[in-house]
Amino acid sequence: MKMEELIRFGEKFFDELEIAVYKNRDASVNIELNEVSTSALRERVVSVVRGVKEKKLGVSIIDTADKEKIKEAIERAYKMAKLNKPDERWISLPEPGKYRKPRKVDKELKEVSPDYFVELARRGIELAREEGIVVAGGGGGAEWGESLIMNSHGVNVSQEGGGAFFYIELVGMKEGRVTPGIFEFDAKLSLNLEVENVVKNALQKVKWAFKVEKSKTEEAKVILEPWAISSLLSYALFPAFSGEKLVKGTTPLANKINENISNELLAIYDDPLHELSINPVIADDEGVPTRRNAIIEKGVFKGFIWDNYWAKVYGVESTGNGKRNISTGGINIGLHNVVIESGKRTLEEIIGEVEHGYLVDGFQGAHSSNPDNGNFAVVANPAFLIENGEIKGSTVFMMSGNVYELLPNLYEVSKEQKVLPFGGSMVVPSMAFENVRIAGK
Amino acid sequence: MKMEELIRFGEKFFDELEIAVYKNRDASVNIELNEVSTSALRERVVSVVRGVKEKKLGVSIIDTADKEKIKEAIERAYKMAKLNKPDERWISLPEPGKYRKPRKVDKELKEVSPDYFVELARRGIELAREEGIVVAGGGGGAEWGESLIMNSHGVNVSQEGGGAFFYIELVGMKEGRVTPGIFEFDAKLSLNLEVENVVKNALQKVKWAFKVEKSKTEEAKVILEPWAISSLLSYALFPAFSGEKLVKGTTPLANKINENISNELLAIYDDPLHELSINPVIADDEGVPTRRNAIIEKGVFKGFIWDNYWAKVYGVESTGNGKRNISTGGINIGLHNVVIESGKRTLEEIIGEVEHGYLVDGFQGAHSSNPDNGNFAVVANPAFLIENGEIKGSTVFMMSGNVYELLPNLYEVSKEQKVLPFGGSMVVPSMAFENVRIAGK
Repeated sequence: MKMEELIRFGEKFFDELEIAVYKNRDASVNIELNEVSTSALRERVVSVVRGVKEKKLGVSIIDTADKEKIKEAIERAYKMAKLNKPDERWISLPEPGKYRKPRKVDKELKEVSPDYFVELARRGIELAREEGIVVAGGGGGAEWGESLIMNSHGVNVSQEGGGAFFYIELVGMKEGRVTPGIFEFDAKLSLNLEVENVVKNALQKVKWAFKVEKSKTEEAKVILEPWAISSLLSYALFPAFSGEKLVKGTTPLANKINENISNELLAIYDDPLHELSINPVIADDEGVPTRRNAIIEKGVFKGFIWDNYWAKVYGVESTGNGKRNISTGGINIGLHNVVIESGKRTLEEIIGEVEHGYLVDGFQGAHSSNPDNGNFAVVANPAFLIENGEIKGSTVFMMSGNVYELLPNLYEVSKEQKVLPFGGSMVVPSMAFENVRIAGK
Repeated sequence: MKMEELIRFGEKFFDELEIAVYKNRDASVNIELNEVSTSALRERVVSVVRGVKEKKLGVSIIDTADKEKIKEAIERAYKMAKLNKPDERWISLPEPGKYRKPRKVDKELKEVSPDYFVELARRGIELAREEGIVVAGGGGGAEWGESLIMNSHGVNVSQEGGGAFFYIELVGMKEGRVTPGIFEFDAKLSLNLEVENVVKNALQKVKWAFKVEKSKTEEAKVILEPWAISSLLSYALFPAFSGEKLVKGTTPLANKINENISNELLAIYDDPLHELSINPVIADDEGVPTRRNAIIEKGVFKGFIWDNYWAKVYGVESTGNGKRNISTGGINIGLHNVVIESGKRTLEEIIGEVEHGYLVDGFQGAHSSNPDNGNFAVVANPAFLIENGEIKGSTVFMMSGNVYELLPNLYEVSKEQKVLPFGGSMVVPSMAFENVRIAGK
């Protein structure tokens, strides 16, 4: 029996239905306190059935791709749909679309043993230990995924691919001083992870962090590095791009299309096939083709991102941003690979021109930001004091404010971008803001 | 080939080793906005190998119980161990012990279809809808687990069993007033979930919550219901019971053995075979027999809980509190079924005697409590104002303090206990405190 026949089977019950099958393999290791603590080879198969009968929805999940079990899941989804009330806003599942050409995949990622990452991790640990620095934590691994999305309107799309990552958290201890944990990482579509570079960059920051400097309560220039930017914007700004929030009236961007919310230095788009993306999907989890969606261009907000359901409720097209929650089977609107456009100067040059300011490596507390109004209150840690264009030492401060007041103060974006393996994938430069209100410590 | 032969195979590489196999089946449903949103049948097998060679540790995880794959995992764990540094504190894996008689298990839990919970959820939703109340969320399901823990010292213990749960979150909307989300739940070792009771209790609280009352900044009597108690103590107090924290010097209970930390009303023990427990394990995840561990008796702190590693480092016996993190394979110290002893009066009687005070159903922010000193800062919500022994309406307030200053103010414990399906299982009464400093709103 072919998978397509399951769609025919399901049509006996449903007006329309979708079957999604995900197979994942992760080979990975964990690092804890200078040692490799786990070597893991995880394999998982999940199938999700989503069917609609007279606008009543049924969703069923199972941990197998066995066809008989998928049939049972279809029957269970149907029993559930029958008992539910109709969703009067339901229109239909997506129609087939045209996909872009997929990226070439690296099959090594499918076969690699966790042993590969044990050795990689050991090398990273040794490089740090040679400098007398503690490796508090870390990890590395390769993820390989294969997926199939089919529906009764003819959508039928298979994808496969994978990526690899390595990260490390270093802590320096010297003369009674314990530095904050310094994170560094690399993520790629191949096994060519740059462990030496990761450790070298982290060691540089640990060295800076040995010297502690006070921060003042003031308005100052603040340069946010990619990890800090990604955590702040992921919680305070990106959720506001969701079309669902537009329909529900909970996004502050509701009446801002074609309005300037920053300045011409800021461009944000979502494109899973961007050259640095580590999530190169040609279809979203509903089988809708992905594309390059411009969200902010030269500071101007260009529009929302949509999945199939909310797009149809609002009367627009899905932008291919339906992402499945693998624990509930539900579809949410999400980004695949958000790209913040790079600038012309290097981070080093940007730092070099700061007479007095701060460089922020990471934020704590970004997750409690409120995307419905853009408010945030975060602790910048690790952060570094800059005086006369040079890093003077590490410091800690509070930054409370509103992302829509922060964005217009952007005055420079770095040339270098970094790939972050969060929420799929992000490609993010460092961003420098002026007149940022901070509360020192 | 028998599983025991895998131990023999592993002994070719390791001085000692442990193999743990977990098989889990969850049949469950989710509820979102008055509808059943997912019907799920999840099945998972995980095997963990932990081996030690010349005090060097190797841990390997795979998502199968296939014997050939376990052999490969043993070899990977060995490669990893070889590259690690010796842990000079390592003594040995546990020796076999004597287990208590297991509880009778209900095999229905192993076979039940998610359909059963679809109907249960529908009934719950209808009961709430009849009263015009919104079911914001909820869920129900049955979990079944089978485990095998074996080591090269002769530990060989199999267990099986399961439990079922149902919970619901209600929100009332009337005349422009939206109540906070009111949670209620039931958890049992059988399918006899009391859905009507769960909904009835939640509806009672929604009705109370329609009327909004101001809270003052004052010292007052505060009665904490089981859900509020469990979240506060899980983060602010229970981690301090860990022997690992004693060894590392990070528990405020370090010098408090046989000292009074509350008063004679407080008794806390951990016992997975307590009659209400929904986590009735006879062995922990290292195969050490579980037992009734008295932690606090008549207000007096009696001692710490231990896994095998930290117990041997400290020179004591494991208390059977080794719990495996299924994503890293590592063992942490944890509670199986913490019981807070009940009192003599009903919650209704305790409320009836409060001239002015508060009843707290849930806390927000408990997770950011600091167990290393007992400090907490939480928002009581949902909470209710009590005047002259009666609930007057709902309110919200802040409670910041220290759990070791709060516990001596305990003046009454309720007769009723509730089972909470968190961190394994908890059996918790309502607890009334006097002279509690609150910041009103």
